[in-house]
Amino acid sequence: MEPFSAWMQAKGPDADIVLSSRIRLARNLKDMVFPNRLTDDVAEKMLHQVEQAVNDLSRTWQMHFERLDHLSPIDRQVLVEKHLISPAFIEEPVKYRAIAIDERESISIMVNEEDHLRIQILLSGLQLEEAWTVANQLDDALERRLDYAYDSHSGYLTACPTNIGTAMRASVMVHLPALVLTRQASQVFTTLAQIGMVVRGLYGEGSDAIGNIFQISNQVSLGLSEEEFIHNLATVTQQIVGRERHARQYLQHNAGVMLADRVERAWGLLTHAHIMTSEEALRLLSEVKLGQDLGLLPKTKSTFTQLTLFTRPGFLQSQAGHELNAQERDQIRAQFLRERLREEVQSV
Amino acid sequence: MEPFSAWMQAKGPDADIVLSSRIRLARNLKDMVFPNRLTDDVAEKMLHQVEQAVNDLSRTWQMHFERLDHLSPIDRQVLVEKHLISPAFIEEPVKYRAIAIDERESISIMVNEEDHLRIQILLSGLQLEEAWTVANQLDDALERRLDYAYDSHSGYLTACPTNIGTAMRASVMVHLPALVLTRQASQVFTTLAQIGMVVRGLYGEGSDAIGNIFQISNQVSLGLSEEEFIHNLATVTQQIVGRERHARQYLQHNAGVMLADRVERAWGLLTHAHIMTSEEALRLLSEVKLGQDLGLLPKTKSTFTQLTLFTRPGFLQSQAGHELNAQERDQIRAQFLRERLREEVQSV
Repeated sequence: MEPFSAWMQAKGPDADIVLSSRIRLARNLKDMVFPNRLTDDVAEKMLHQVEQAVNDLSRTWQMHFERLDHLSPIDRQVLVEKHLISPAFIEEPVKYRAIAIDERESISIMVNEEDHLRIQILLSGLQLEEAWTVANQLDDALERRLDYAYDSHSGYLTACPTNIGTAMRASVMVHLPALVLTRQASQVFTTLAQIGMVVRGLYGEGSDAIGNIFQISNQVSLGLSEEEFIHNLATVTQQIVGRERHARQYLQHNAGVMLADRVERAWGLLTHAHIMTSEEALRLLSEVKLGQDLGLLPKTKSTFTQLTLFTRPGFLQSQAGHELNAQERDQIRAQFLRERLREEVQSV
Repeated sequence: MEPFSAWMQAKGPDADIVLSSRIRLARNLKDMVFPNRLTDDVAEKMLHQVEQAVNDLSRTWQMHFERLDHLSPIDRQVLVEKHLISPAFIEEPVKYRAIAIDERESISIMVNEEDHLRIQILLSGLQLEEAWTVANQLDDALERRLDYAYDSHSGYLTACPTNIGTAMRASVMVHLPALVLTRQASQVFTTLAQIGMVVRGLYGEGSDAIGNIFQISNQVSLGLSEEEFIHNLATVTQQIVGRERHARQYLQHNAGVMLADRVERAWGLLTHAHIMTSEEALRLLSEVKLGQDLGLLPKTKSTFTQLTLFTRPGFLQSQAGHELNAQERDQIRAQFLRERLREEVQSV
């Protein structure tokens, strides 16, 4: 497994602020109960059908099917940290769960999460339409090989009623340090809620927005077409990008020294600390990224999203090659980040 | 005026922990009221007598007499920050006050502070006996030229009764970061109080002990000879030095990573910040010094006491060459320390 996913190279449009665009489709198979009620026999049969479908597509889509219980707990954790699967998906028992991922890690299919299939496309920058096109093609290809549960009135049937209809969710992950610094973020989020958007922290529901990273998604999936939803979210995201850029300019003109102090201190701590919690690391990396975006700090070869992976426990243990307790992780995290930033800035 | 005093080169014995040794004598002239009651005429006459005495000694002692009102407010402030005069001495009105200082800034005489004369000897490291010898010689030389108020029963008469008798005060300034880190400092200070020693922060009475710098002095000056006092303080100081060294070893063996994290972070912040208060700077410099003493950080050409001067408002304005408001000082302070540490470590 490559350490980083392709989208983490941050080559997409507006990728300095829009870290990623994501489309997720929920699909279920006809005449089979939802995953939470599957018997062992039916689950096994169902997994087999999906594996065959994925194998049929493996050439064209460079996809690889893997049962979750064949992966180590650390490898499963890393998949969550790379946003390829949900945290709930790796909660035990994982026996009848599987994952299909493409080489670039832009495509992932969770098998037997809340729904039989959760198809996800993850791209760099603001590329919701592009992700939707890919999702649509993959969905069509799968539908030719699998019997989807579909009702001409309700659309695709899903385990959770809030997903019924298009069973599509679109989201973007945005980095908004200047809106937070200028205290405009909460007002922006209130406005978003009023137009049916949901704002969450880095790792989805219930997680805090450490590191000024926010996930914005559409709340309802019924009543509008997929294209309309996606267009709405893309438009809103573009407006947020504009406001964030404006706030950055404002800060540079009106609080240049404060800004330099903040981002340089963050760099100083990241290149010197020997013990660092994930929370502090993410907070400091966010400030370093702001400094790099504004030309106040040297660029590094590793992108922000690549560096943030070093704050995560699974990725750290995977890189270290063995299990680590919390204390050891705080040290290895500090060491990895320290060495990486120091080395990379010398070679810029 | 040289930016630094000779003792700041830290060449004295145990100068890594004992930053300085100080002997201070209070002397008053016979048949003249104490400074707080001096009339203008008498004050002028008195200043004149002292100036002549100092001028007589200037060859041998390399001393220079200066009336305080001939110095700018910033230069007066710098003298306080270099521990050559007391903070009270520069409070207005300063008209009939003067100062005599030698070239190395080891000797200073405050004229018309609380007493007519306050003679101070300041040396690097634990050199109380040496300072006492110098003080004694200078005192004798002055006594040959001035009529001291002396009573065979009470000894030297002083304005404040607590100074009566030997009218001598001995003190050391010690840097005790490891005793503070291991939470032994307050217990040590309680013991010191029980044997009649006074512990204060960096700038004497009422100041907090930021930067783990403490001033230890004898409380009473009556009942023991000067030599006995000095011997007692020197012995106690040696014990404290031993305990501090022991605490440092303990930390290195039992909390090496924590220690490395602490001192490296301090270095990282000092070499990167663009805004820094004097309090933060002193706290960080103290940690950097601990790191340097333990070989965890590279040495700098500037010593700790030299660097701490950059935290002080008067010194900063003197170095900048003009007045600075608090905000400007926080920026210049950060800049001076940042540049100095970065430059000096490259040339080590």
